[in-house]
Amino acid sequence: MTGTNQVESLLLNRRTIRAFKDQPLSDAQLHLLLEVARQTATSSFLQQSSIIHITDQEKRAVIRQICRQDYVGGNGDLFIFVADLYRNQQLRQQMGNDDGRLHNTDVFFQAYDDTVLAAQNVANAAESIGLGSVFLGSIANDSAKMVQTLKLPQLTFPILGLQIGIPDQQPELKPRLPLKLRSFENEYQADYQLQQFADYDAIVQTYYDLRDTNRRIDSFTDQVNSNKLNHKQTKRDELLVTLHQQGLCLY
Amino acid sequence: MTGTNQVESLLLNRRTIRAFKDQPLSDAQLHLLLEVARQTATSSFLQQSSIIHITDQEKRAVIRQICRQDYVGGNGDLFIFVADLYRNQQLRQQMGNDDGRLHNTDVFFQAYDDTVLAAQNVANAAESIGLGSVFLGSIANDSAKMVQTLKLPQLTFPILGLQIGIPDQQPELKPRLPLKLRSFENEYQADYQLQQFADYDAIVQTYYDLRDTNRRIDSFTDQVNSNKLNHKQTKRDELLVTLHQQGLCLY
Repeated sequence: MTGTNQVESLLLNRRTIRAFKDQPLSDAQLHLLLEVARQTATSSFLQQSSIIHITDQEKRAVIRQICRQDYVGGNGDLFIFVADLYRNQQLRQQMGNDDGRLHNTDVFFQAYDDTVLAAQNVANAAESIGLGSVFLGSIANDSAKMVQTLKLPQLTFPILGLQIGIPDQQPELKPRLPLKLRSFENEYQADYQLQQFADYDAIVQTYYDLRDTNRRIDSFTDQVNSNKLNHKQTKRDELLVTLHQQGLCLY
Repeated sequence: MTGTNQVESLLLNRRTIRAFKDQPLSDAQLHLLLEVARQTATSSFLQQSSIIHITDQEKRAVIRQICRQDYVGGNGDLFIFVADLYRNQQLRQQMGNDDGRLHNTDVFFQAYDDTVLAAQNVANAAESIGLGSVFLGSIANDSAKMVQTLKLPQLTFPILGLQIGIPDQQPELKPRLPLKLRSFENEYQADYQLQQFADYDAIVQTYYDLRDTNRRIDSFTDQVNSNKLNHKQTKRDELLVTLHQQGLCLY
């Protein structure tokens, strides 16, 4: 090993793209992305994820409001990845069975895995054909509104959005924590000291986020110590309520 | 579009590999895989995942017992992907701050996303250099034992195992549910009828799982209607207890 292959090159140089040209996916591109999701690994072969492609302008506007990011539902195609235990519930009911363990956290996590694995593969496939993408965790800003907007039935839950299109920006590679702080051998290495993060903090501050080239971003530790994780009363804190209302993770 | 590129080809033809040759990853391969994990997209730049590479034979044996799959901890390298909010908690504490929202479900889900996205990219990178892999959801068979074995501190949780090595088998591509039952436009399409699954059930029954070439597998709907989802009292049902013990998803 190793000459760099296309996959490595793509994975090692991944940038989030938030600005797209005004051209939707072709039918062939759309089909490829959905096929890739379909072929993604699935826990216990239960295939407990679904994808909703949002093409309706009104729904795109509602999701933009939920996400509070002006590029959401703008140029590019918008997909919502849904953990989906409803399909298997319906099958069991029609075969005269009960819901079994579908309301248990363990089975929800299996569906969660299926959903996120598929989202990552779709993003990779998109990049491989020259497209860019941004994951939208911000759909969690109001899970209940997302459920209502997509008419998600019981035992389904919106996990991640993914917006995909032709890139209209070229961000720099964003520097990440050193491996020694994120990967360990045999056991967790639990003795973090603030000074271990100093060099990395300095590197992060030299990165100019192309969303605003006039402004440096905060150091990593400052971001951790900030509003991103501070207490604040928002609908994001109600995610567990929505999850329970959907009949998920009840025990 | 589209001539098939290497990424598409890999993603559309993904097989789970459960038998590996007796040769561990080289240092260069290991480094590549960890680098790919490091560069994976991360929610709010909080980088809340970690990887533990299990090389100790005793620990590998314990994990095999937890997973109850004889290939686990056999040939191939074994990795556990961990949702990790502990690192950021430690940083906040050393900067004189409280835990903020780290015990909230929303923030745990951000970490969960980070962790599974990284696991998928590592699996893809492994395939791109001729290796194969199997995701191990079976580490959830006994979450508390996994926490103990890896000495996982508060605010961390083992999400997925991934075993990687040189393939020693060539399984067939496993057929998946048709797209029309898994992807929708604008809203969830909720009206499943059992007969819609009949053709797919027939296809699944023609697939011979190479783990046992003498035995056909059950149809998809029979699998859904089976032990995989039926009530049974196991430690998997205690996942939420362990999650709470780790200080996660408290509200």
